[in-house]
Amino acid sequence: MNRCPPLSRTERAQLAMMLEVCAYPKPGNVDRCHDYEDTRLEHFLASAIMARPALERAEQGEGGIGALIREAVELTSCHGGGNTHFGAFLLLFPLILGGDIEGACSAVRQTSVEDSLAFYEAFGTTKVRMLESDEEIDVNDPAATATIRERGMTLLDIMGYSAPKDMVAREWSDDFALTRKAADYLLEGAGRQAIVQAFLRLLSEEIDTFVVKKHGIEVAEWTRREAGAVLAGTRSLEAFDEECLERGINPGSIADLVIAGIYVALGEGWQWDC
Amino acid sequence: MNRCPPLSRTERAQLAMMLEVCAYPKPGNVDRCHDYEDTRLEHFLASAIMARPALERAEQGEGGIGALIREAVELTSCHGGGNTHFGAFLLLFPLILGGDIEGACSAVRQTSVEDSLAFYEAFGTTKVRMLESDEEIDVNDPAATATIRERGMTLLDIMGYSAPKDMVAREWSDDFALTRKAADYLLEGAGRQAIVQAFLRLLSEEIDTFVVKKHGIEVAEWTRREAGAVLAGTRSLEAFDEECLERGINPGSIADLVIAGIYVALGEGWQWDC
Repeated sequence: MNRCPPLSRTERAQLAMMLEVCAYPKPGNVDRCHDYEDTRLEHFLASAIMARPALERAEQGEGGIGALIREAVELTSCHGGGNTHFGAFLLLFPLILGGDIEGACSAVRQTSVEDSLAFYEAFGTTKVRMLESDEEIDVNDPAATATIRERGMTLLDIMGYSAPKDMVAREWSDDFALTRKAADYLLEGAGRQAIVQAFLRLLSEEIDTFVVKKHGIEVAEWTRREAGAVLAGTRSLEAFDEECLERGINPGSIADLVIAGIYVALGEGWQWDC
Repeated sequence: MNRCPPLSRTERAQLAMMLEVCAYPKPGNVDRCHDYEDTRLEHFLASAIMARPALERAEQGEGGIGALIREAVELTSCHGGGNTHFGAFLLLFPLILGGDIEGACSAVRQTSVEDSLAFYEAFGTTKVRMLESDEEIDVNDPAATATIRERGMTLLDIMGYSAPKDMVAREWSDDFALTRKAADYLLEGAGRQAIVQAFLRLLSEEIDTFVVKKHGIEVAEWTRREAGAVLAGTRSLEAFDEECLERGINPGSIADLVIAGIYVALGEGWQWDC
């Protein structure tokens, strides 16, 4: 090792994205050992590289959260791997703008209607399902932006609206509680093993709302229980991983929270390199 | 995919470092499937992220090649994985400054004594063996810098001095011929498979001078022949890889050339994402 300047916020965010996707085995998700056919390790790593201009603008305090998310989504849509980090960006941009969790809580309270509109524009380039079509504000409905304007909804309002069904959005109104929990779990250990443990512990404690949207509540409950069984030593992690991969059960929201947790933990001296 | 701005030179270099190390199986080297105990996939990926400020300065035409290499080595020495990209930087910085191979040839001809001195300073932070201790200019000898000044040796002179024993240094005086060859091999295919094929073809045609320094010429010759046998279909790539890993035979200079080749190929429309 060497004289090392402290990591910039941008570097912490990029390292967090890189370290999370490399860590293995992570049940059902892309990791060092597993790709999905359309989305591979290299797509996640390319996105970590390509997102940099937006991350850096956030670090310099330029641009609102909505515009920054839109920019990051555009920058990372230039490959065939689809949306890799939409949820992670929802957490990282407040954290970068605010520096830490306290700052992030302050940043989301300052969002505006303009942030909401920019955020909705970002949807045009993704296939993210956030507000479901049976809800009042349909992301695919051109009238949504009119509704946002009429009601004066800030991006914090939008996230509050999505919170019951989306654990990433819920972080905004819940003081980044699961991000904090992920960071605390990481800080109990170091390196790859700590990432895998933090992932499994969150997965065993929380229903992944991304899994709920894709497979329904019963499958999400099953995933949570199986993660607990792995931690209890009564279920093979590798076999659980294989079953998730076969069934396409990818707990993407837990992964987003772990990325945010790594960002926070790196800022608190967590050792990734061991 | 989406409206995509052309990749910047910095992004091409970072993608090249990322794609090269992820590609597998690569006989003897760190790849997606293999770590060495002290140097792991994450170290290479962290270096690709951390080198950015130096890469970007090169893209903006700031700084001489020697100072840029020194800066990049310092930026990427902040982890326990040791020197991951020293050889790659020797190729990437001329390529970024010059844009392409023609520009790189022009850039290396413009190097100065100052570049040589900065380059030698970079050695202080690495364990790279370039000029061996039985040679006249020993990198570990404080008198070396005096010698460089007295003789007015540019960095191109230094590379010429190292060329007989170092295939990366040789690129400087040989118009980046193997970089060109690597790019041409890549352009015959796409994605990960093209990287593995380019790696194997170079390895079967050229003696890796890094292997020579570490293990001697006979082992390097054996490695070259075995790579040829893999391409001829008479040797299992996986078994060859395992044997190299067990014996610590890591063809690092071929890897550096493949990184430079990916940088060039990306600039010529090569598809990494397929």
